[in-house]
Amino acid sequence: MDRPEALLDTLRQHIGPAHVLRPEDADLSAWTVDWRKRYHGRPLALVRPADAAEVATVMRACAAAGVAVVPQGGNTGLVGGGVPDASGRQILLNLGRLSRVRALDVDNLTLTVEAGCILQQVQQVAAAAGLLFPLSLAAEGSCTIGGNLASNAGGTAVLRYGNARELCLGLEVVTPQGELWSGLGGLRKDNTGYDLRDLYIGSEGTLGILTAATLKLFPAPAAQTTALAACASLEAAVALLGRARAALGAALTGFEVMNAAALALVARHFPALPRPFADGAWPAWTVLIEQSEAGSPDAPGEAAAARATERFEALLAGALEAGTIDDAVVAASLAQSRSLWALREHIPLAQAEAGLNIKHDIALPVSRIPAFVEANGRDLAAACPGSTLICFGHLGDGNLHHNLQAPAGIDAPAFLRAHEAQVNALVHDAVQAAGGSFSAEHGIGALKCEELGRRKDPVALALMRRLKQALDPLNLMNPGRLLPPG
Amino acid sequence: MDRPEALLDTLRQHIGPAHVLRPEDADLSAWTVDWRKRYHGRPLALVRPADAAEVATVMRACAAAGVAVVPQGGNTGLVGGGVPDASGRQILLNLGRLSRVRALDVDNLTLTVEAGCILQQVQQVAAAAGLLFPLSLAAEGSCTIGGNLASNAGGTAVLRYGNARELCLGLEVVTPQGELWSGLGGLRKDNTGYDLRDLYIGSEGTLGILTAATLKLFPAPAAQTTALAACASLEAAVALLGRARAALGAALTGFEVMNAAALALVARHFPALPRPFADGAWPAWTVLIEQSEAGSPDAPGEAAAARATERFEALLAGALEAGTIDDAVVAASLAQSRSLWALREHIPLAQAEAGLNIKHDIALPVSRIPAFVEANGRDLAAACPGSTLICFGHLGDGNLHHNLQAPAGIDAPAFLRAHEAQVNALVHDAVQAAGGSFSAEHGIGALKCEELGRRKDPVALALMRRLKQALDPLNLMNPGRLLPPG
Repeated sequence: MDRPEALLDTLRQHIGPAHVLRPEDADLSAWTVDWRKRYHGRPLALVRPADAAEVATVMRACAAAGVAVVPQGGNTGLVGGGVPDASGRQILLNLGRLSRVRALDVDNLTLTVEAGCILQQVQQVAAAAGLLFPLSLAAEGSCTIGGNLASNAGGTAVLRYGNARELCLGLEVVTPQGELWSGLGGLRKDNTGYDLRDLYIGSEGTLGILTAATLKLFPAPAAQTTALAACASLEAAVALLGRARAALGAALTGFEVMNAAALALVARHFPALPRPFADGAWPAWTVLIEQSEAGSPDAPGEAAAARATERFEALLAGALEAGTIDDAVVAASLAQSRSLWALREHIPLAQAEAGLNIKHDIALPVSRIPAFVEANGRDLAAACPGSTLICFGHLGDGNLHHNLQAPAGIDAPAFLRAHEAQVNALVHDAVQAAGGSFSAEHGIGALKCEELGRRKDPVALALMRRLKQALDPLNLMNPGRLLPPG
Repeated sequence: MDRPEALLDTLRQHIGPAHVLRPEDADLSAWTVDWRKRYHGRPLALVRPADAAEVATVMRACAAAGVAVVPQGGNTGLVGGGVPDASGRQILLNLGRLSRVRALDVDNLTLTVEAGCILQQVQQVAAAAGLLFPLSLAAEGSCTIGGNLASNAGGTAVLRYGNARELCLGLEVVTPQGELWSGLGGLRKDNTGYDLRDLYIGSEGTLGILTAATLKLFPAPAAQTTALAACASLEAAVALLGRARAALGAALTGFEVMNAAALALVARHFPALPRPFADGAWPAWTVLIEQSEAGSPDAPGEAAAARATERFEALLAGALEAGTIDDAVVAASLAQSRSLWALREHIPLAQAEAGLNIKHDIALPVSRIPAFVEANGRDLAAACPGSTLICFGHLGDGNLHHNLQAPAGIDAPAFLRAHEAQVNALVHDAVQAAGGSFSAEHGIGALKCEELGRRKDPVALALMRRLKQALDPLNLMNPGRLLPPG
């Protein structure tokens, strides 16, 4: 990049001067600082193209100038994958203006949207047609579908509907060379060559820029019901999962676990929330089960809800009799369902109130989880006396948030210096030994790039480098993210 | 390949002389002629390694000698992707001896098997544990799971469970250079880098050799019930699909359509099969609907079957009242369900009895199917007077078998000379114009390689070539298959 001004002139000419902003011209911090405020970037310019053709123009100009490009959606990522570095030499390409809904096909159950559409907007377009786009996560009011796909987002509906990857049938992509691949389309079967779609999904902007996607929709459930069950151990929770899968089949849409420490923390910081079990105490493990019931357009939702409640009661009665659970509560109304979910949703908030913690987003085979949590919990307690393991998450997906809460009133920087590296190694080594993943749903970005280099199978890493070299030989797409330095 | 004998000596030494067979030594036709007997290959040798380590050894030796390798599973492919060419210079690498079941994890609902396991064996291992591996297709008694994944097989359970791609959580792969990538594991969430798994799935042996896979299992349904419905048009069948999806949700596991000509052909050649509708005639379109119902381990299957029948009756009564269907039959027993399915399964057999036909395996957005079939049927009738359109398939997946039956008693070679190219162009041009695929579930292989070159988006084709060059720079993996000459 010998003449950045020449590149900026070209971009202004094609995209319009209002959409090419230098840090000298305006406060860009909404785009250059990440969600968790750990990365503070400084771009050559923030560029906001209007459509895929303009994205292609930007890419051709940047490729010709040898300037790196960092694509960005809603800037809600948790791993620093969507903000530029501090060099002042990278173009920050925000996709927010690509926000059109291109096509809704009710009979085909598909929706084609541009990458900058907000996830909640996508959900609403589906709902307005009586359909469901099931991807759902905490940032849904500001994250974009392009970012969801670039990071293969997870969320709360994975058990039934899969990750973002499983919800996408087609993509439109601009390559690092500025070519436009039109791979949209709502086909459920198409065996005509390599699976380019899934290669771009989850590639975190390092292979090309997603500009639009065709998404899978589903019939909206007629009724959703929720229950809580008390388990004496994680082994019992895994046994209950097996029973729930068999009894409810694909109607089982949520299966979350929370340890007693997590719910005690919630009760301490949010005393207005319910204590649903008879004695007001928390069992070793509380399970939240959600069931979604289909319903005929000719039958009212109440009938579906009654069927669902009946199935819940049969499942829980059998589990009580078998000793798998010790107590259970079935929500009698939508409001009660919401208050049970609120317990789960308030855990991260209670953790923030309680002070310092070290977080892990891990996945394991479900069968390995009980032994992992017991042994790793013991090791963590020995390594950090006085700290508490706050363990909760999507047991049905094998995905745990396995967080160590520091003792109250501790000197945070000193605690981190003394324990953070050791705690991360204790958790990630044990995860790796159990065949798990140290990054279940948040991605790699800049934050976990070195960890990927240490923990990924070396042949897989070599294959990833060959693919990157083939598709982005100049290393202009989001450099320094996802793929560790070779 | 200057000294093939040196390569064969190396292979004999590592794999054992009994597993390195030259065409001069034995009749290899079971391996060198494809299922439909259109490709007759002659390899340098048939090589049958025992495990992944031996596969890696073979690949290193072939790479060093510059000899191409054609991987083969059960040799049941329909597009000539698994037999060598006639040059006598390719190694035919049969994976049949890699047939171990490595691990069954009931709590995690996963099964890890080697590539040479027969699909039916995989189904049986799951069933013995009370679980379901849902991939099911006509060749299941002899095809291998490695071949299913290499070709991303479809089959009869795609509507609910997806293609082979969706049923695989992890792979073990030997690269063209003889490296072993251990990507097995039963994780539902793992965002640690590019999606290598899905790149290999469906790559038809052109990027590497699948040696093992971790597969998803499901609870076995407690009951399956089947119904037939009579529709006056494909529009009505699409409307019924919408109703069935909403009413049955994920319990809807099959939705097949058959035109009147297809069922008339079945009735002519298999008169013992049922004529289930009241007047014995065939409606314009007959729909077969299958429902699978979950069941608690504490509840008998009869209760599940009764619930399923009740839901069927509500669905069909509503559709009758709305005028979506004109008649319906719900199977009262497993035997009746089987006899309804037999109508669908006998269509290809009836077509074979009836003589010459030109077949197409196409996919379209469901919403485009009625207009496509009407207009294309008219065009085909005008182009080939006296011929009959036999149209049937997986409407729920947008996948049709759209076959032109030649007039009875016609001179087959003359008919093909006069019409085959024109008919294929008429069908594939119309499919392409409607946003469809000319290869839904059978793959590309050698048969459709040129067609791929003509019809694939040119940017996608260029991206495919870059990936091939990156992973197999010497073009030793199944050359001439999938990817058309550049």
